[in-house]
Amino acid sequence: MPEPTSRFLRACRGLPADTTPVWFMRQAGRYMPEYQAIRRQHKSILEMIARPDIAAEITLQPVDILGVDAAILFADILLLLPPMGLKLEFIPGRGPVIHNPVRSPDHVAALRPVDVASDLGHVFEAIRLVRSELDGRDIPLIGFAGAPFTLAAYIIEGGPSRNFVETKKLMYGQPATWHALMERLTPALIDYLRAQVDAGAQALQLFDSWVGALSPQDYRGFVQPYAARILQSLAAETDVPLIHFGVGASTLLREMKAAGGDVIGLDWRIPLDAGWTLLGDDVGVQGNLDPVALFAPLPELARQVRDVLTRAAGRPGHIFNLGHGILQHTPVEHVRAAVDMVHEFSSQ
Amino acid sequence: MPEPTSRFLRACRGLPADTTPVWFMRQAGRYMPEYQAIRRQHKSILEMIARPDIAAEITLQPVDILGVDAAILFADILLLLPPMGLKLEFIPGRGPVIHNPVRSPDHVAALRPVDVASDLGHVFEAIRLVRSELDGRDIPLIGFAGAPFTLAAYIIEGGPSRNFVETKKLMYGQPATWHALMERLTPALIDYLRAQVDAGAQALQLFDSWVGALSPQDYRGFVQPYAARILQSLAAETDVPLIHFGVGASTLLREMKAAGGDVIGLDWRIPLDAGWTLLGDDVGVQGNLDPVALFAPLPELARQVRDVLTRAAGRPGHIFNLGHGILQHTPVEHVRAAVDMVHEFSSQ
Repeated sequence: MPEPTSRFLRACRGLPADTTPVWFMRQAGRYMPEYQAIRRQHKSILEMIARPDIAAEITLQPVDILGVDAAILFADILLLLPPMGLKLEFIPGRGPVIHNPVRSPDHVAALRPVDVASDLGHVFEAIRLVRSELDGRDIPLIGFAGAPFTLAAYIIEGGPSRNFVETKKLMYGQPATWHALMERLTPALIDYLRAQVDAGAQALQLFDSWVGALSPQDYRGFVQPYAARILQSLAAETDVPLIHFGVGASTLLREMKAAGGDVIGLDWRIPLDAGWTLLGDDVGVQGNLDPVALFAPLPELARQVRDVLTRAAGRPGHIFNLGHGILQHTPVEHVRAAVDMVHEFSSQ
Repeated sequence: MPEPTSRFLRACRGLPADTTPVWFMRQAGRYMPEYQAIRRQHKSILEMIARPDIAAEITLQPVDILGVDAAILFADILLLLPPMGLKLEFIPGRGPVIHNPVRSPDHVAALRPVDVASDLGHVFEAIRLVRSELDGRDIPLIGFAGAPFTLAAYIIEGGPSRNFVETKKLMYGQPATWHALMERLTPALIDYLRAQVDAGAQALQLFDSWVGALSPQDYRGFVQPYAARILQSLAAETDVPLIHFGVGASTLLREMKAAGGDVIGLDWRIPLDAGWTLLGDDVGVQGNLDPVALFAPLPELARQVRDVLTRAAGRPGHIFNLGHGILQHTPVEHVRAAVDMVHEFSSQ
């Protein structure tokens, strides 16, 4: 495979670049007035995602407005759920809700097999549209999906959760049901992510947003084998870099690296240098500014951006990002300033 | 000071005991029918706490029903707030709400100084009642308070929070206001905790429930000096052991130990042996069963209890507990079984 030229893909491969690349999780979203203008014209987020032209337009907004070094498809980590027969709805103020949560072997058996080409064709069409819009610009497009633990937690809880009681009750009390659910999710995720690459995604991120709820022991027993199967299949069957990310997962980093990923995402709870040392230098790291730093006055934001870059010490393989997604009400001008700071400070 | 005889206090001092002592955070609470029976007769939790006879009765319920090795006062981590002029209300389904959150220097200046003896006399009276009820039984009573970060986060957010945006905005954007607030909380906490000891508390736990939201850098700059002042004052001025506990704080453990505490509480995100190794053997550890394990079938619960004890390897200085408080709907018979398991397995 030829050496990539873009900053982002070079960093994913551990190659030096002119500056540290930067993009932000949830860089397309409701903190941005241009997004809000589109949002107001549609009944729901799922309806927007289902329209490839709209999804492509939203995907490109932060590329033009912020000057980030990568685009990430406007989609949702839970898109695999409706084709499985799960009734997903985004309820304002509450987040994603699944009206028929899975709690028994019968519930797992009733899940429909996913045919990604027909069930999720709009996602691949959006990817093709974004790639064609980006033609001639060296801005790679990132595809993604929720990791199997995070999907399972939503499916079992029926929505967001603080303590994941139903999820862990199922793990501890009905382990066969848990593993049956993971056996459904794993091949579907492999198909879905591979099809994103086939459509044109140039990198993939697996979001294990809720995995920080688990002990390392539970991660190894209930999650790692499935994350490993997904990441190792994609490494064998595609040639795009894989980013593996969890929140609150500082004590799971070695296990997550062992499961797979060319780049491991770090949240802000572990200093970037400490995280990278723990992971070893045969892997890249993405992160790890606290999302709330974007609300800080610009001199304080600059201090924190510089701290992250100083801890990365200019080593190839660092992709600047937040430790989690951009929050609602984040000032857009601060996000844009952070992009400029990363480029300026890292080229010094 | 003479050597303590109770399992719990011996473990706090790093002394061997006949079995590993066990108590549970939130061991008195709404998962227990005997508590619910009292709860139904009162309008609010604050009203129950304000009645020393009721608080004492609830404190003693888990001692009799579960057979735990320590009592913890029935109270709340936020009791210091109302005397400061903060309008605290527990709203069912939402948790504690503060109707006049602190967001400016004027708000901090308007906070009232606390005179713990007159403002919180009911707490000390409850402690005296519990001690008198426990007379002749070697069951120590633990006093506690919320740590300054957790109190400040509630005070600034006005209630529970997912992202602590207002708290961190204040830290980053108005650091003088942050430090002024911490300067109000710190002496009040010292007075309050010392007065609990004067009334008869035989150990103290500082609950920094939300501190896991912070990076180690922010912890050092914004929190550690105040936690250290509290814990070091109490170590100098009292002779009771101090337990220092945070949730999701695996990357802050060394900093929390440096701030102080004879025993550091671990949540379930770090294996107990790994946590104790990180902390060093000059400190005790408390924890660290996942609270959801109490919902598991008894053989699985036994496996997880045994795993924690195996990781502690019978070293003096381990206090068995959960990694966080007992959750609502936890089966009481499983909590009681866990107490028996700890005693049985650790005496083998």
